[in-house]
Amino acid sequence: MQIGLFHTIQWPEGSSHAERYDQALAQMCHADTLGFDSVWLTEHHFSRHGLVSDSLMVLAHLAARTSHVRLGTAVSVLPLHHPVRFAEAVATVDQLSRGRLDLGIGRGYQPGEFRGFGLDIAEKHDRFEEALEVLRLLWSTNGPASYSGKFWSFEDADPQPTPYQQPHPPIWVATDSAEGLARCVAEDWGVLLPQGTSLSVTAGQMERYGTALADAGHGPERARVQLARAAHVAATDERAWAQAEASYKDFLGYADRLRRATAAGSDGGRSPFDLDADLRESVLFGSPDTVLAGLRRIADLGIDRVLLFTHWGGLPHEMIMSTLDLLAREVLPVVREW
Amino acid sequence: MQIGLFHTIQWPEGSSHAERYDQALAQMCHADTLGFDSVWLTEHHFSRHGLVSDSLMVLAHLAARTSHVRLGTAVSVLPLHHPVRFAEAVATVDQLSRGRLDLGIGRGYQPGEFRGFGLDIAEKHDRFEEALEVLRLLWSTNGPASYSGKFWSFEDADPQPTPYQQPHPPIWVATDSAEGLARCVAEDWGVLLPQGTSLSVTAGQMERYGTALADAGHGPERARVQLARAAHVAATDERAWAQAEASYKDFLGYADRLRRATAAGSDGGRSPFDLDADLRESVLFGSPDTVLAGLRRIADLGIDRVLLFTHWGGLPHEMIMSTLDLLAREVLPVVREW
Repeated sequence: MQIGLFHTIQWPEGSSHAERYDQALAQMCHADTLGFDSVWLTEHHFSRHGLVSDSLMVLAHLAARTSHVRLGTAVSVLPLHHPVRFAEAVATVDQLSRGRLDLGIGRGYQPGEFRGFGLDIAEKHDRFEEALEVLRLLWSTNGPASYSGKFWSFEDADPQPTPYQQPHPPIWVATDSAEGLARCVAEDWGVLLPQGTSLSVTAGQMERYGTALADAGHGPERARVQLARAAHVAATDERAWAQAEASYKDFLGYADRLRRATAAGSDGGRSPFDLDADLRESVLFGSPDTVLAGLRRIADLGIDRVLLFTHWGGLPHEMIMSTLDLLAREVLPVVREW
Repeated sequence: MQIGLFHTIQWPEGSSHAERYDQALAQMCHADTLGFDSVWLTEHHFSRHGLVSDSLMVLAHLAARTSHVRLGTAVSVLPLHHPVRFAEAVATVDQLSRGRLDLGIGRGYQPGEFRGFGLDIAEKHDRFEEALEVLRLLWSTNGPASYSGKFWSFEDADPQPTPYQQPHPPIWVATDSAEGLARCVAEDWGVLLPQGTSLSVTAGQMERYGTALADAGHGPERARVQLARAAHVAATDERAWAQAEASYKDFLGYADRLRRATAAGSDGGRSPFDLDADLRESVLFGSPDTVLAGLRRIADLGIDRVLLFTHWGGLPHEMIMSTLDLLAREVLPVVREW
């Protein structure tokens, strides 16, 4: 099993952007030093739900401060980007990291993010498809390419640099519907399962994924899936829950307010967080042994990559570093053998 | 006098993007170690005239690999950016570098770059002014801001992070006309003088700048100006010219082809390179003593910041590193006292 970090750089009231960036980057670099496998960043705009608006740029910075972790977006909100400039940015961070980029892409779900760019969230599906078509054109053309679409048209674009990983970095998509999973199989995209669900829900998602793979004639060894989980580790279960529960519930409360704002939008999209999930079934809080047991249940579902969300805004930096240390000492060496 | 590097990451035929990035970044990091004052990057698209399309991202990477150099764009082509996303990117690199960003902005001059983004270069002046208006709005608003313009409209954008340097990083503009210089004085922008001109032309530019300052009631001590110069240093003048002349002329030939393509555009813009300048009057090639004498003539014009362009595409990496070493040993300690 591979273990990565999933990071949003939350911005709780009363903290400074400089301090938040500083501590979050220190945590990601520490994860690299400790032997974690990857660091994934969200892209969010205009809210406290994450200070990373230019996630590819932050990954380019991390490329210099880390030596082996894969660097992922989870996810880049494709409808909010000009696809030509996006292709340039993707290729640049892939060059700067010598091919360590994993490119998670999605459609977005927050109406406020679309309004802040002067866009209509009702167009998000069409914009996603068209942006993807443009990216494919650019990645498959050696030389200038022209395109005429509904949202973007251009002549003789020849983005440079080109990606270090040819023809392009691995693509990951956040989805859990039967159609979405079938498309991931057909397109050879990895799957990012929604965070915050109960494990029983995850089991259903993996069943659907297995069906999609089988329908396309593949066995389960073809699965490529990452599951994100909130995680906090201390010496005992009691201590871990006492440290983490209140601030995590604050975070869920904020996510819920954003969900309600989202529901008020025209889109009918949803937050990737399942806010009604049973907390004990949807997070990995506890002693190293308890967390290991939780990861074992995840592995038993056929999932061999887990992204840990350790920084939801209210925990002191030192406590998050301690979680990383405990994971590296007690958990990583065990799960790596699975 | 302060000495920085001006870098484009040229892409001569037969070289790989990975190698070009690798060597160029090594040169910039070496300059930081040697005590140079700044590194400035161009933004170019779709041609061999520079592999840096996402210059702010590359500066974010350099922020991690350098410790003291100021990090500049020379220049960011404002009409090609969505101003809300640009504000986010500017603030992010400023946070990641803890306030080391210098923001050079311009209108662009290559029709192909506009076509490749589906834009009309004839709109570049209007787009520049509107983007600037949006940036000012965002930098001066604490909370959500809305805007309705000719090119961009949006509701409740509240870009995060905010810049480390408040209210925004220093702004620099490439100009040499009387009106352009007067505006720089009025707006409190620094001036980037065009590269590649003969020193007599530079003298005229500085005279106009002095007039603009005086007209606004300022003395020459208020001048804030950077001059870019091609530079190559070896033990003797003969050796320096023998090493550098042919490849620099190749570079000028490529710039000339781009200039002609530019002239064919609808804009009437021009290359920042004066391709008809007398080479001996427009570059700093030679022994350390000769380069010192050239810098003295520049200092005598009232210019106290010079950006050296040492990497135009045809010189071996080791030779450029040697130029940097010679500059650091023989030139920087002297000019720093001026």
